[in-house]
Amino acid sequence: MRKEIRITGTGGQGIILAGIIVAEASGLFEGKNVVQTQAYGPEARGGASRSEVIISDEPIYFPHATNPDVLIMMSFEGYYKFHSHIHKNTVKIGDSFFLGLVQDLEKDIILLPFTETARKVLGKALFSNIIMLGAMSKITNIIGIEALKKAVSDRVPERYINENMKAVDLGIELAEKWKSEHSS
Amino acid sequence: MRKEIRITGTGGQGIILAGIIVAEASGLFEGKNVVQTQAYGPEARGGASRSEVIISDEPIYFPHATNPDVLIMMSFEGYYKFHSHIHKNTVKIGDSFFLGLVQDLEKDIILLPFTETARKVLGKALFSNIIMLGAMSKITNIIGIEALKKAVSDRVPERYINENMKAVDLGIELAEKWKSEHSS
Repeated sequence: MRKEIRITGTGGQGIILAGIIVAEASGLFEGKNVVQTQAYGPEARGGASRSEVIISDEPIYFPHATNPDVLIMMSFEGYYKFHSHIHKNTVKIGDSFFLGLVQDLEKDIILLPFTETARKVLGKALFSNIIMLGAMSKITNIIGIEALKKAVSDRVPERYINENMKAVDLGIELAEKWKSEHSS
Repeated sequence: MRKEIRITGTGGQGIILAGIIVAEASGLFEGKNVVQTQAYGPEARGGASRSEVIISDEPIYFPHATNPDVLIMMSFEGYYKFHSHIHKNTVKIGDSFFLGLVQDLEKDIILLPFTETARKVLGKALFSNIIMLGAMSKITNIIGIEALKKAVSDRVPERYINENMKAVDLGIELAEKWKSEHSS
């Protein structure tokens, strides 16, 4: 088992924190080998942000995500920069608030209202990354919900733990709703 | 120019945050190509934590630190696990509070009181990682102080920015004191 997850978005969306939480859920609480990476460069300033997580039962010798099993696109930048390099079996999940406005959006992207739900239900767009993690876990089963919640609790400020647990649950609900609408 | 920095310690010491701050200082504010990585595995639970940063003028194709130019050891675990794999030209910097108690400690480690200074001057051990970054920047010149301060400001909670700026300055002072005592 080797799974590669690439989370993309824009600076300020909590992309790196999301990658660290996935890595700790899997590496610390589910006993996997995990490498979590982010790349910065002149291109990254004010623009696309990217975080990669590789999860494996075996030691990981090549820590780059070459063919992600999961591609998360939280913003336009993430979509335009990364969607075309992806093979057909990748599970693609995007934020409907940003990607919903893209003309001729590719059909196989699971669009979910992470940012919209964060704003409307929790009052702050900054919970969108945690809502996304709940939904991704439910859709892909790469990490378990219990491990996710432990990892979120360890990484967010203590006084925001309750809101972040709620954010995970909201993500799970979005995924369940999507699944029920797309099962045949 | 390619520089590899490995920061080691124990869970809770802010090792990953320190790696991210170094990466953002260099990648976002000094225009370098940077890859920042952390590995998790069954061994990491409750034990050694490690964060690696590779900084280069060129694109980075192999993102593992094989021969770190700088090794930071914030705890016993970091010392015992990593010090013996290091080549002779590596700049080794350790926290005197933890490493000072090691019997037969290798002689070429720069021991500085990060944890002790954090506790005594700022009242909280959790600033030790930021003090370390100030000292590392001053000793190695791999990242500039201005870029470091920008990156710290972007990554710490707003109400703790002043204390964190003070932490950077305390680290610079420790490094300057060490340099003046070791110049001939």
